[in-house]
Amino acid sequence: MESLKNQILEEGVVLSDQVLKLDSILNHQVDPVLISSLGKEFAKRFEGESITKVLTLESSGISIAYATAYEMGVPMVFARRKKSITTDEDAYCERVPSFTKGIVTDIVVSKSFLSADDRILIIDDIIANGDAVRGLMQIIQRSGAKLSGLGIVVEKSFQAGARTIREAGVRVESLAKISSLANGKIEFEA
Amino acid sequence: MESLKNQILEEGVVLSDQVLKLDSILNHQVDPVLISSLGKEFAKRFEGESITKVLTLESSGISIAYATAYEMGVPMVFARRKKSITTDEDAYCERVPSFTKGIVTDIVVSKSFLSADDRILIIDDIIANGDAVRGLMQIIQRSGAKLSGLGIVVEKSFQAGARTIREAGVRVESLAKISSLANGKIEFEA
Repeated sequence: MESLKNQILEEGVVLSDQVLKLDSILNHQVDPVLISSLGKEFAKRFEGESITKVLTLESSGISIAYATAYEMGVPMVFARRKKSITTDEDAYCERVPSFTKGIVTDIVVSKSFLSADDRILIIDDIIANGDAVRGLMQIIQRSGAKLSGLGIVVEKSFQAGARTIREAGVRVESLAKISSLANGKIEFEA
Repeated sequence: MESLKNQILEEGVVLSDQVLKLDSILNHQVDPVLISSLGKEFAKRFEGESITKVLTLESSGISIAYATAYEMGVPMVFARRKKSITTDEDAYCERVPSFTKGIVTDIVVSKSFLSADDRILIIDDIIANGDAVRGLMQIIQRSGAKLSGLGIVVEKSFQAGARTIREAGVRVESLAKISSLANGKIEFEA
């Protein structure tokens, strides 16, 4: 995914040693040509896994998860952060801290959209400490569905999230791995 | 859009005379075949409007707005509800009530993603009283961009939102118009 790395270098804004802002291509404005290529790449990497559903968390993951689900020909489910009056009472709920938002939120998935027959691909835009993804993994486990893997657009590999999830035996595919944001400079893993 | 109406009749859950839950196809789980067809339909209806950007509000509008932007070959921007630490200070902000959530939220769009040269298509999943969409319209007006129209998947035409916006001279294209949810029954406009 050289084109992704080039867009990250061109458009990414380093806010601190820990935080990279990708608002112009992923997190606020979305480039459909890029997103569509990411969806195709995830579909290719997880071909043969018999994925039945793509799961993400609102909001930045939605367009990427949709593009992936579209390529795979399966439904996409987005977990919600906290409840609205139109959400089922009959839902899985996990409390997770948010790295970028600096707050704790509840993430919620209706029980009717996950079953023991499902093989789930989690898609997310950026992984830092992995708290949100671990919340999704907890929900999948409680539902009895099988987690087939994680597709992440940008892994900040200097933070522990993806590494600890790989160490737990889960397949994690990251399209770009950033090894450092020190001194305002984006460095990718070799 | 007969297929959309059929899916609404099959999958829609009438929670009250005012609230229709479409969690299995639009608002929580997403059917990519349906969403992609909605995107194509909006792109066709607004062909010739020289749209430069599609604007929506997180979260349920995102996949539909993405599919529309993909068909049109333009970027998609989603307004955020309240600020995260990675959001620009340099942003347009409007306070709007949320019909389904029963709360007031701030919706925010970075100033860098709207300019006076833009011709904007607003996309949203459901319009009830239209408060969220009016917030987006205010933001577009403040940016100096031109609002070319609104594409709405489900218009609840017994509520005032779409009507008052049309009366203000804005083109509103709704793919399904629901005239009543009384007695637990979904009725479409003839």
